Amino acid sequence: MLSIQDLIRKKRDGEVLSDEEVKAFIQAVTDETIQPCQTGAMLMAIWQKGMVDRETEVLTREMMTSGEVMSWPKEWAGRVVDKHSTGGVGDKVSLVLAPALAACGCKVPMISGRGLAHTGGTLDKLESIPGFTVQLPSEQIQQTLSSVGCCIVGQTAMLVPADRILYALRDATSTVDSLPLITGSIISKKGAESLDALVLDVKFGRAALYKDKESAKELAQSMVNVGNRLGIRTSAVLSCMDAPIGRCVGNSLEVVESLEALKGNGPADLMELVSTLGGLLLMMTGLVSDLPAGQKNISEAVSSGAALDRFRAMMEAQGVDRDLARTLCSPNTDYHQILRKAEHQLELTAPSDGVVSDVDGMTLAVVLHKLGAGRSKVGEPINHSVGAELLVSLGQKVGKGVPWLRLHYEDPAPTPDQIRQLQEGLVLTKESQTRPKHSLVEETLLPK
Amino acid sequence: MLSIQDLIRKKRDGEVLSDEEVKAFIQAVTDETIQPCQTGAMLMAIWQKGMVDRETEVLTREMMTSGEVMSWPKEWAGRVVDKHSTGGVGDKVSLVLAPALAACGCKVPMISGRGLAHTGGTLDKLESIPGFTVQLPSEQIQQTLSSVGCCIVGQTAMLVPADRILYALRDATSTVDSLPLITGSIISKKGAESLDALVLDVKFGRAALYKDKESAKELAQSMVNVGNRLGIRTSAVLSCMDAPIGRCVGNSLEVVESLEALKGNGPADLMELVSTLGGLLLMMTGLVSDLPAGQKNISEAVSSGAALDRFRAMMEAQGVDRDLARTLCSPNTDYHQILRKAEHQLELTAPSDGVVSDVDGMTLAVVLHKLGAGRSKVGEPINHSVGAELLVSLGQKVGKGVPWLRLHYEDPAPTPDQIRQLQEGLVLTKESQTRPKHSLVEETLLPK
Repeated sequence: MLSIQDLIRKKRDGEVLSDEEVKAFIQAVTDETIQPCQTGAMLMAIWQKGMVDRETEVLTREMMTSGEVMSWPKEWAGRVVDKHSTGGVGDKVSLVLAPALAACGCKVPMISGRGLAHTGGTLDKLESIPGFTVQLPSEQIQQTLSSVGCCIVGQTAMLVPADRILYALRDATSTVDSLPLITGSIISKKGAESLDALVLDVKFGRAALYKDKESAKELAQSMVNVGNRLGIRTSAVLSCMDAPIGRCVGNSLEVVESLEALKGNGPADLMELVSTLGGLLLMMTGLVSDLPAGQKNISEAVSSGAALDRFRAMMEAQGVDRDLARTLCSPNTDYHQILRKAEHQLELTAPSDGVVSDVDGMTLAVVLHKLGAGRSKVGEPINHSVGAELLVSLGQKVGKGVPWLRLHYEDPAPTPDQIRQLQEGLVLTKESQTRPKHSLVEETLLPK
Repeated sequence: MLSIQDLIRKKRDGEVLSDEEVKAFIQAVTDETIQPCQTGAMLMAIWQKGMVDRETEVLTREMMTSGEVMSWPKEWAGRVVDKHSTGGVGDKVSLVLAPALAACGCKVPMISGRGLAHTGGTLDKLESIPGFTVQLPSEQIQQTLSSVGCCIVGQTAMLVPADRILYALRDATSTVDSLPLITGSIISKKGAESLDALVLDVKFGRAALYKDKESAKELAQSMVNVGNRLGIRTSAVLSCMDAPIGRCVGNSLEVVESLEALKGNGPADLMELVSTLGGLLLMMTGLVSDLPAGQKNISEAVSSGAALDRFRAMMEAQGVDRDLARTLCSPNTDYHQILRKAEHQLELTAPSDGVVSDVDGMTLAVVLHKLGAGRSKVGEPINHSVGAELLVSLGQKVGKGVPWLRLHYEDPAPTPDQIRQLQEGLVLTKESQTRPKHSLVEETLLPK
């Protein structure tokens, strides 16, 4: 067997590592016999030289089995599903999709993350609901899936320890954006959930990890390949991430928008993502025969109120007071009785007449991050009330002076420079130049 | 100022780091504020992307000043010199060259290393002399230079701490063979000796770090450039490292051969290296006007016995008993009264008639390493008595059954497979195919 130095040298020189060599690397990471400097060098060598499909597959499988792998009752076979998104501004899809899938008969053990860049992650959003706990022991996850059908929880220390170690080192060593490393990280975690089907929402655009669609597609294809080789029916959608998804950005504001969506008032772009991703999952499980039928089921689960009921039950199962959960799910609720509202609001107004042709989601995310809606380091506190509401839609005609964005902030207040950046993110054009509103989902990759 | 992650990202992407950025990296290495995983990633990024001359220069300067920098009495100005070799099999040049230079009026604060690959380093060789200590405090180094003119000592913890840290990590991360990192490591250490002139013996060939002359020349040019930019008159020779230098390989056997050389009985290849390297230094200090004059002075220092006398004085100054040092330096000494001889000797014989056209120095080094003459990890013990004597010269006609190599070993004994490898390293040809014996030094790079 080669030493760790030899493995690094092979990858450094662009050679392909054997199954046993990839396994030895992940084993050494998991049992911490590799020196951190060696892991840093190996990650950089992988970043520089890449990995062939087979290496990525073995990397992912070894990461997946580096800790506990979940197991489910036999009678759920074929129906355990999850979704993963590479992250977007205003992306609250999980909050609507998980209960909708549960209402359609799926089991959704959604293990989610906290945000590092941009604004908070799914867990941060849910934690803006008083009492909501994202740390459930394995037995309670199974109980919740049994009674509710879905849960949204954080990763436990038992699950995929190799990823926990590697992720921290990738962050420290500027090796996050490597195709095999991203694939390994995402698919290993989903694989440890013992899924039957998985759908990936791979974003491209200004506010996405990958700016261009080609790179996003390469990542999507890599994850679809590896997911299917690990025995999970895996598909992916490529969706555009330029403007924010929906109207709200920021943790508690996104919970409000998700609840409104579950009450039938969701914005079109959000609902398109929910029904497409959910439809693909229903199709892959065989619960429906094709994508349109799956989309229809998801839409009906929302419009019937069944998905809202599952969200309520999930909140209760995850620690939210019963009356409070019911109040949040009632029609015409004043959400801010329960979800704290930021002390200050500021409305930005359109600098001229025109048609809203673009809103820069990335600039909005960066400014909100600085106002406390996100964190830069693991463990930093987050201000759940900080956020922004878009008051206009793409394609909408506005007059000079009309409010287009409402900022929710506390301490720090937005600086004049930040306000200028936000204003520059609003693109107004003459009516004639406006492009027709197009679908966010541009392409779908199905299992072969 | 950019964060460490940003610096890694820049180098990862092949960008040129500014002076301040290189400085920040070395500073963080020295004060250990950088995480080891980050150093590993940066070293791999430098290995992959290289550095431009300016980056290498700043890297070297910052490493040099990361700790104590030596200072010398004014009256030595212009005469403080040293040599560095990239390492070869049977390379005992330092043991002869340092006292020869001292005899010519130079001050030689030779800070040397221990061997990691191959057989032992210069310090290991000297430690086979009973009582010889390589750890001298700074004041004693100065005293010894004052009274003797030369000393050969190990690196102190105060000198170039950044290199000590980086070297261990380069070894662990398979990033040793990087041109800017080698340049930085070697020239920073020599720079901290506050030299006036430095000569580099850069080896190429089978038993050298670089197998081809072009790569060795690239390294030599990089070191000559950086050395001169740091204010040290620096030149380099490119010398062939295929067969062992001289007749003996192994720590105590090389001390014997060095003493014989100082007594006027040195093999031609060893003496060629000594006089060329020494001649270049004498020329660069201005003590002579050209290389032939310098070579002549060095040869005379040896043939007159002046160099031997300096070696004796150096031994005494570095802890060797006075009578013992004198015995070693007497004519017709039985060296093995003082330097322990290995318990076992084995002579290998020529498998056929022929002319010795090649002896594989690398194979010999690898086998001796396994027999205990070298170490694989810092701090491992070494058996000073293990080694080999070449009993034939290149170009010599031998008959079948004539002994050509005498192995000195203890525990472990050589295996049949090792003996086969050694036999394969002896190349015998018909007389007509023999190339004429050529000089080891193939090219010289002088300061511009």
